[in-house]
Amino acid sequence: MEGSGEHGETSKGPLSKGVSRGLCILDLIFRVIAVIGTLASAIAMGTTNQTMPFFTQFVQFKERYSDLPTLTFFVVANSIASAYLIISLPLSIVHIIRSRAKYSRLILIFFDVAMLALVTAAASAGAAIVYLAHNGNVSANWFAICQQFDSFCERISGSLIGSFAAMVVLILLILLSAVALARR
Amino acid sequence: MEGSGEHGETSKGPLSKGVSRGLCILDLIFRVIAVIGTLASAIAMGTTNQTMPFFTQFVQFKERYSDLPTLTFFVVANSIASAYLIISLPLSIVHIIRSRAKYSRLILIFFDVAMLALVTAAASAGAAIVYLAHNGNVSANWFAICQQFDSFCERISGSLIGSFAAMVVLILLILLSAVALARR
Repeated sequence: MEGSGEHGETSKGPLSKGVSRGLCILDLIFRVIAVIGTLASAIAMGTTNQTMPFFTQFVQFKERYSDLPTLTFFVVANSIASAYLIISLPLSIVHIIRSRAKYSRLILIFFDVAMLALVTAAASAGAAIVYLAHNGNVSANWFAICQQFDSFCERISGSLIGSFAAMVVLILLILLSAVALARR
Repeated sequence: MEGSGEHGETSKGPLSKGVSRGLCILDLIFRVIAVIGTLASAIAMGTTNQTMPFFTQFVQFKERYSDLPTLTFFVVANSIASAYLIISLPLSIVHIIRSRAKYSRLILIFFDVAMLALVTAAASAGAAIVYLAHNGNVSANWFAICQQFDSFCERISGSLIGSFAAMVVLILLILLSAVALARR
């Protein structure tokens, strides 16, 4: 609010402008972290499969991520989020230079919120399935498959981390954009 | 940006001010819808149980929502979101009167985003479990329990609707707040 009596780029003091630029650079860093998180999750999950070695050549037990539809959704959602985040990087760089942009920030908030919902949905649906794989469920007669497929289970559990990290970073990104809008 | 040369409540034209007030009233309406959605979901899921009538008095098959930990999380998350949304209603009313508020809007965005993550997580984890209950999974040897517990399954499927609706409304709420911040 202070010094908002003028139009244009020069309406804020140098300190305030520096803080605004700092927020924009933080935005860029967070976006890169989120790209890494979602991409790592998608790749780690997408390359997961385990074949049981001790069965005959006729009956082979093999578990792939695509046997569980929820894990397929996890891979697709994380890939989409990662692609969007890479596309949004140039816009984030533009914001560092033009820190008073309004409409482009609103567009970024819109898509960031949508991607937050997508990544959160993927991460938590994945977590629900991974939990079942580890613990099973007595009343529904679903057995824990992790006793047979231990490396498969470790892998799908690990790939959740990147997705949950991306979720937290996306929340911070939305808040950063909101603060930047409020400071204009 | 237009007419931003003055401080205080009177800096915008009457039309622009009317639009701002309209956005705030929309915010209030959306919040009420989200309260109804999350509350209905929590209650519908929280009261779900089914006892199979055709078993003996010694062995009774009963399925309750709390047998599946994910569904318990669903109830808790929707209750928390619904409680937060009710608490946020007065602040939303204050925004109708004082449409240039900045910090209270930022606080609302912060909690709205957190609640969006919570509701999305609950809805999608619930959906993953409901999908399994309906379809089972061949490779993991998880059987579809909906063949035995049909009314249980209908109930838990139905209670997802309110949660997903609340998710969409929360996304719109965050966007409304962002637009309101940008229009200040």
